[in-house]
Amino acid sequence: MSFWTLQQVAEHNKPTSCWVIIHNRVYDVTEFLSEHPGGAKIILKYAGNDATEPYDTFHAPDTLEKNLPPEKYLGPLNPSDALALTHAQRDKTKTKDQLRVEEALTHRPPLHRVINLADMESIARRVLSHKAWAYYSSASDDEIAYTENARAFSRFFFLPRVMRPVAICDPSTTILGYPSSLPIFVSGAALAKLGHPLGEVNITRGAFVPPSVHLIQMVSSNASLSFTEIAQAAGDGQVLFFQLYKHRDDILAERRVRAVEAAGYKAIFLTVDAIVPGNREKDIRCPWVLEDEEAGVPPVYVEDTVGAASGGEANLFGTAGALIANDDRSMTWEKTIPWLRGITELPIVIKGIQCVEDAMLAAEAGVDGILLSNHGGRQLDYSLPPLEVLYKLRRQRPDIFSKLEVYVDGGIRRGTDVLKALCLGARAVGLGRPFLYAQGAYGVSGVTKIIQILEREIVTGMRLLGVSAVKDLAPDMVERVDWQPLATKL
Amino acid sequence: MSFWTLQQVAEHNKPTSCWVIIHNRVYDVTEFLSEHPGGAKIILKYAGNDATEPYDTFHAPDTLEKNLPPEKYLGPLNPSDALALTHAQRDKTKTKDQLRVEEALTHRPPLHRVINLADMESIARRVLSHKAWAYYSSASDDEIAYTENARAFSRFFFLPRVMRPVAICDPSTTILGYPSSLPIFVSGAALAKLGHPLGEVNITRGAFVPPSVHLIQMVSSNASLSFTEIAQAAGDGQVLFFQLYKHRDDILAERRVRAVEAAGYKAIFLTVDAIVPGNREKDIRCPWVLEDEEAGVPPVYVEDTVGAASGGEANLFGTAGALIANDDRSMTWEKTIPWLRGITELPIVIKGIQCVEDAMLAAEAGVDGILLSNHGGRQLDYSLPPLEVLYKLRRQRPDIFSKLEVYVDGGIRRGTDVLKALCLGARAVGLGRPFLYAQGAYGVSGVTKIIQILEREIVTGMRLLGVSAVKDLAPDMVERVDWQPLATKL
Amino acid sequence: MSFWTLQQVAEHNKPTSCWVIIHNRVYDVTEFLSEHPGGAKIILKYAGNDATEPYDTFHAPDTLEKNLPPEKYLGPLNPSDALALTHAQRDKTKTKDQLRVEEALTHRPPLHRVINLADMESIARRVLSHKAWAYYSSASDDEIAYTENARAFSRFFFLPRVMRPVAICDPSTTILGYPSSLPIFVSGAALAKLGHPLGEVNITRGAFVPPSVHLIQMVSSNASLSFTEIAQAAGDGQVLFFQLYKHRDDILAERRVRAVEAAGYKAIFLTVDAIVPGNREKDIRCPWVLEDEEAGVPPVYVEDTVGAASGGEANLFGTAGALIANDDRSMTWEKTIPWLRGITELPIVIKGIQCVEDAMLAAEAGVDGILLSNHGGRQLDYSLPPLEVLYKLRRQRPDIFSKLEVYVDGGIRRGTDVLKALCLGARAVGLGRPFLYAQGAYGVSGVTKIIQILEREIVTGMRLLGVSAVKDLAPDMVERVDWQPLATKL
Amino acid sequence: MSFWTLQQVAEHNKPTSCWVIIHNRVYDVTEFLSEHPGGAKIILKYAGNDATEPYDTFHAPDTLEKNLPPEKYLGPLNPSDALALTHAQRDKTKTKDQLRVEEALTHRPPLHRVINLADMESIARRVLSHKAWAYYSSASDDEIAYTENARAFSRFFFLPRVMRPVAICDPSTTILGYPSSLPIFVSGAALAKLGHPLGEVNITRGAFVPPSVHLIQMVSSNASLSFTEIAQAAGDGQVLFFQLYKHRDDILAERRVRAVEAAGYKAIFLTVDAIVPGNREKDIRCPWVLEDEEAGVPPVYVEDTVGAASGGEANLFGTAGALIANDDRSMTWEKTIPWLRGITELPIVIKGIQCVEDAMLAAEAGVDGILLSNHGGRQLDYSLPPLEVLYKLRRQRPDIFSKLEVYVDGGIRRGTDVLKALCLGARAVGLGRPFLYAQGAYGVSGVTKIIQILEREIVTGMRLLGVSAVKDLAPDMVERVDWQPLATKL
Repeated sequence: MSFWTLQQVAEHNKPTSCWVIIHNRVYDVTEFLSEHPGGAKIILKYAGNDATEPYDTFHAPDTLEKNLPPEKYLGPLNPSDALALTHAQRDKTKTKDQLRVEEALTHRPPLHRVINLADMESIARRVLSHKAWAYYSSASDDEIAYTENARAFSRFFFLPRVMRPVAICDPSTTILGYPSSLPIFVSGAALAKLGHPLGEVNITRGAFVPPSVHLIQMVSSNASLSFTEIAQAAGDGQVLFFQLYKHRDDILAERRVRAVEAAGYKAIFLTVDAIVPGNREKDIRCPWVLEDEEAGVPPVYVEDTVGAASGGEANLFGTAGALIANDDRSMTWEKTIPWLRGITELPIVIKGIQCVEDAMLAAEAGVDGILLSNHGGRQLDYSLPPLEVLYKLRRQRPDIFSKLEVYVDGGIRRGTDVLKALCLGARAVGLGRPFLYAQGAYGVSGVTKIIQILEREIVTGMRLLGVSAVKDLAPDMVERVDWQPLATKL
Repeated sequence: MSFWTLQQVAEHNKPTSCWVIIHNRVYDVTEFLSEHPGGAKIILKYAGNDATEPYDTFHAPDTLEKNLPPEKYLGPLNPSDALALTHAQRDKTKTKDQLRVEEALTHRPPLHRVINLADMESIARRVLSHKAWAYYSSASDDEIAYTENARAFSRFFFLPRVMRPVAICDPSTTILGYPSSLPIFVSGAALAKLGHPLGEVNITRGAFVPPSVHLIQMVSSNASLSFTEIAQAAGDGQVLFFQLYKHRDDILAERRVRAVEAAGYKAIFLTVDAIVPGNREKDIRCPWVLEDEEAGVPPVYVEDTVGAASGGEANLFGTAGALIANDDRSMTWEKTIPWLRGITELPIVIKGIQCVEDAMLAAEAGVDGILLSNHGGRQLDYSLPPLEVLYKLRRQRPDIFSKLEVYVDGGIRRGTDVLKALCLGARAVGLGRPFLYAQGAYGVSGVTKIIQILEREIVTGMRLLGVSAVKDLAPDMVERVDWQPLATKL
Repeated sequence: MSFWTLQQVAEHNKPTSCWVIIHNRVYDVTEFLSEHPGGAKIILKYAGNDATEPYDTFHAPDTLEKNLPPEKYLGPLNPSDALALTHAQRDKTKTKDQLRVEEALTHRPPLHRVINLADMESIARRVLSHKAWAYYSSASDDEIAYTENARAFSRFFFLPRVMRPVAICDPSTTILGYPSSLPIFVSGAALAKLGHPLGEVNITRGAFVPPSVHLIQMVSSNASLSFTEIAQAAGDGQVLFFQLYKHRDDILAERRVRAVEAAGYKAIFLTVDAIVPGNREKDIRCPWVLEDEEAGVPPVYVEDTVGAASGGEANLFGTAGALIANDDRSMTWEKTIPWLRGITELPIVIKGIQCVEDAMLAAEAGVDGILLSNHGGRQLDYSLPPLEVLYKLRRQRPDIFSKLEVYVDGGIRRGTDVLKALCLGARAVGLGRPFLYAQGAYGVSGVTKIIQILEREIVTGMRLLGVSAVKDLAPDMVERVDWQPLATKL
Repeated sequence: MSFWTLQQVAEHNKPTSCWVIIHNRVYDVTEFLSEHPGGAKIILKYAGNDATEPYDTFHAPDTLEKNLPPEKYLGPLNPSDALALTHAQRDKTKTKDQLRVEEALTHRPPLHRVINLADMESIARRVLSHKAWAYYSSASDDEIAYTENARAFSRFFFLPRVMRPVAICDPSTTILGYPSSLPIFVSGAALAKLGHPLGEVNITRGAFVPPSVHLIQMVSSNASLSFTEIAQAAGDGQVLFFQLYKHRDDILAERRVRAVEAAGYKAIFLTVDAIVPGNREKDIRCPWVLEDEEAGVPPVYVEDTVGAASGGEANLFGTAGALIANDDRSMTWEKTIPWLRGITELPIVIKGIQCVEDAMLAAEAGVDGILLSNHGGRQLDYSLPPLEVLYKLRRQRPDIFSKLEVYVDGGIRRGTDVLKALCLGARAVGLGRPFLYAQGAYGVSGVTKIIQILEREIVTGMRLLGVSAVKDLAPDMVERVDWQPLATKL
């Protein structure tokens, strides 16, 4: 295998012959173009050229080798051209957004000054790239579901009990039988590398600091590191769950599930609320915002000469669109659950239940748990807040809580939020964005920090409720009030 | 017929002898003054002078010929004076508002950056003349009905279903038996020419781009183009409905209906909620705003010397007043519906039903459909939002939905709004202002653009609701919640 | 009777001998000091000096003669001193607030640009003296009752009827048998002279412009003109009612009632909701605001040397305190109504009913009407809005509406407000502040103007409701909704 | 006992040998370090140095002597060094916050301009040190409970009665049998010295100005003066109650109770809602705010080199943490109430009841009263507002009001607030922060001032409600409405 020159590679810059350089290795991706989940267009932007940086941001390192036949690796770039690429990358003028981020990072507050999750979010907002912030924070349409997920908690007030011994207070629990130091887990969230070069393993490491801190992480199919890499970063005895976006091809899906089980994951969370991408406008607008900022002025409109509206350059599916392009849109209770049961012995949890009826169908289907979720408000806008679904479930079908474990995610930012969900019957609650923000702002330390904050808030809250163990949190300790508090600070 | 000079015409500048020039043709409108729906005053402003520009803005080209006896056309202006008029028009100093509009038009964003209807509205707000914006956007009194129409949708949340096959998803339906690519139609809205020189045909052309886009347009009696012109602009197989403001003279009204039917319109929407003009204050204040802007300072008050209040120069009926001055204010179920049935075979829809009782009376009267509407909040302020009327109808009289087709308009801006109305039983929903804004901002292309946006939003919403055809949208998929979301972005 | 010099008068500047000059006449008010409803202090401020200006602002011209024995008039000032006083008055440096008002008056908009009552209020806010604005607009404590009075109307929505003949539409009615061109009357409001030198007669004249405009004015005991003066300003056939603040001394009270009846007043509105002054903080703070404005800086605090809190100079009863200092605080149903029935044949209306129980007691007491009112939010803060009391009355005791006439005031600013109250059973509604603002801003013309505005709004509203006479306004045309509109513009 | 030099003391600046100077006296606190409720760290900051200023701010003068064995007092500082310390203190550069406070104090308004409690709070906000303001005003988490405590009152409206004699109106009552000039008491609040050098005795003196003003003060265990000092400041016949934070050691707790009884206190309010410190973030952030203000810039973040999150310098329990570190977290109804009954004959009141069930348990336990309180929103956020708990109690268990006295605190700022609670059954209501603000802003005079304001508001409110004695305030005079007033001014 000989060395290639930049000039030789540069000739293969067309759909009919498309080569790219990744980490100084030359690949022929011509045939792969049509299979790329993110579409051919984004690859062709780098045809005949170096694609290392975008590749690293969006993919696990082993993605390429898993998806390309070995013969498509054509060989290494010659050393002097490789050096030239390195220099070019170094000398590349930084964008205004990159410069802003660098400046912002030097002004992060000392970590001990972060005393709640809102602090962490506001710091992340300042230190993340616009792209990362837009992808993490965006929600669908007018972001009503996103906002109301959090606001739902503010309608539930406590009826605390006094004169009960709480000198000793234990916030730990088990989830699907696995111990957790708090009734909390990391809900699956994609593309951690957008926020921090180390990506998801920041969360893996920060969530497991024995003996005091050990939370379970649910790893997304769309993580920016492979599930194997993440599993390898896990500590001794650390538990991971897998968030499955089922591929439309059952064979490929089965292969994925078996590999996940082999890698040591302890449960499958089947995602059912993201069958098509939500309309996340902040994410869609992101490239235009950056473009205009770079140019200093917005573009001038040139009247279309033809009568029909041109679709222009808009990628209306945003960052998320590419990630789920090949997902299965024809799942059913009758077909999909038995299929999954047939190929794995892991517990199965349905992620994305949004009404009482489907909760009952899940119980009938015999799954081990359900996660009440509207995908953090990122899918169908005006989907009822998960806490409200939990409340309906508690009132209409209290029997379900003995049939399977019920979890909730969406909008949880305070220890009191956790306690409200547990009073209403949740086994545990998931948090997504807060972990992305924490690792983006302070890496591993940030992740551990927010867990410590939540632990302190949960224990204080339990004691002030007159409760010394999570099992004692009861429905009569919360009341849904008929007024809306003026404002939450978050 | 000889040529006339400007000087000759200028002598006829009184109520007793009033001539005007329109497109270099001289007319004697003395006898017509008292019949002009907009009042004599507005014509007298141009007595003895050129009236081409205001005529074009508010009238269909054939209006004059339809309303004046042939002998009132006195003949052409002489060529040199016609040329002088052209030059005068060209050299006329532009108003501050015209200059603002010209500048704003050069800064419109590229159309592909318009990703929702709120974008389109905010662009229209910037590029429309103040008069157009004031007329289109205004609503009555304190604009509570207008605001609450939209806000009503925000109280309805979804209970989405999962694990249902949605790979194939069809948003099409039929309205009065006519196919529509989406469960949407263009609700009648007047004076499109205020926003764009081509007027209503922008909508006609933009709403019909086969095979993917074909919506039905309801054409207003008060359109700034004649219904014949609009019908002529329609494509092959394109369906148009007619929004009838019934003239108080049954003979004239019948003539109008027969002409409309002859022109190929497929249904009559009889308007019953605009029997007198609403109090649209933004529209009423418009001339003063422009006057003060032009002058640079507001006028100084001169104390009335007489004791009684003087009515001053205020046109308290705004732009709309003139349009409906001759409408029938004595319609009844007993008299009007049989009369209309007697003169046309077209389906009849009552536009402007605002309570359950009248919906039932309409069904008893045997009409083909009802449009729940409060005229976009432009008539009686505090009229209950149409979506709330629909919700009451669904709960109190679910039987009605099998007796006639029920439509809704007012406040619809998102695909999820459409889906909520359909879940509650609406056959289709109408949008008015969004089409005026779209054609005002980008002409035909703007109209098609918002239809494409709505299609994408509707299809995404259906899939995330677990629904693959509009007929499967059901009442149990929406819930009226008892809290009010913090804010909608629109 | 000889002439007095300024010097002679100046010697009587003590509580033990206190003379004042009013319109160049010298009075000995030493013995009257203790009887002055506004307290001795305010008179002593002018002891030995000219008191014409403050006297004119707060009193009817004949007040002095009615309250002082004839011998206390000591005689005229000598002509040269009288001239000196006139010059001194003319040359008196104007306060900053007076200069502001003069400037503001020159910038009033032309009256025809005033198109709703909010316009009138915002103009009044600019052209009234700070004292007038503070007195008129102030309400008690946190002004919740004031704000909620108006906001209550925004919770009632219409269910308009269509296809009903409304070409002819008559908004007139009768009140206690007297005809009124609209279902509206002028609610008693004090001290009109604060806003305009002509005072209450502006309202008297503006409310009666036959044949189209004839409203009934309720004249307050605390008017700044005497009830006789106002009666004299009334037109031929114009009807006036009298708002009685009953004096604690039954003899004096009886004398007042008989005089009122003799002056031609047609009904007695007995005020029962203002038995002690409300805490109107804007009014209380008024002198300090003016003081600081004049001085340019706020005063510096000097620590009290004694331990106890000093009450300082605050007049904690504001302008209203003085007006009602001698009112009867021991009225009862058993005692007061029979007494009043015994001394007059005029119809009796109780002004200030605030709950269903008292409405029933009033009916049992046999009065002719009740005015549901919390004194415009100026008395007990958090008193239930009168419209809500009306709504409760309609639901709990619909029989009462046939026993007596029910009126409402507080927060009415739109024709639709009037119609809502009438649908719920009110015979007519009262407006207070709007008339004070209108006369303050434009005198008589302003008063007529707002009546014309209301007429237009009421007639338009009736037609759009499908109603052609006030008697057809029915409870099923309004609905109390369970949400709160986002904002009213007023 | 010899004199010590500063140099000698300075050598004992370590945990193993720690001396401090207080009021020129030298103490060995080495062994006391581990017992200090506020932790060793705060003492070590002053090891080998003068600690007079911080000692005085947070402790009663006799604290040291009570807690240190006599032999730990090592003797006096030599006179020249004592003088040097005095000079050093005098010459110490003032902090920016101290300078701000000094300036603000010179601009306090004259006391007579303070006309409501909101005025007093806004003045206090300006003239208090940041530390005092942060400690007094802070509440837990997002301060929802704090805000909603006050806002709850705004949902209750009055149904005033008219035609009832109120010329004589008496607002006095008794609390546990002791007379009070108003149905109000001073609720326990700690650390008054933070706001004013004289501390809690300002309140003691200001609340007792016979014959008109005599309120009962509840003195906190955490007062900055000893309960004996406060008792000594009390006037002849003045009544004090004691707010007990029970020590975990029953012996110490008993000693405290007996001493309190001996000092003349008339009741024990046992605190049960503050068993662990609440998360008061404003208080926690206070030192950083002052640090950054002093430095002019916020600190720069230095990346942690270790993976785990460092706890840094944050004192996450704030000012309150130290105060309750040794409190009993194992109290029960069965154990604690009988114990307390066994050691004192004083009436027992439970402070901090937050639900109906615990109110009933308190009645069963035979206590004399309960104070419905969530500790001013400073403990568990989202604890139901006390007024709502009172309302539930009134509806669900009206019988309880005859079994014990029920009090309420939290959010009371107006006379109408007091009247609402009394209508619903409260015997009296407590106010805390308002007294701290009043004494901080104007010392004794400020305290008397707000009592006079409340008296005027209560009497006016009673009269306008038609009530002449507190016993006549009845549940049917208030109504919980289903809307939320737009805004309170406080």
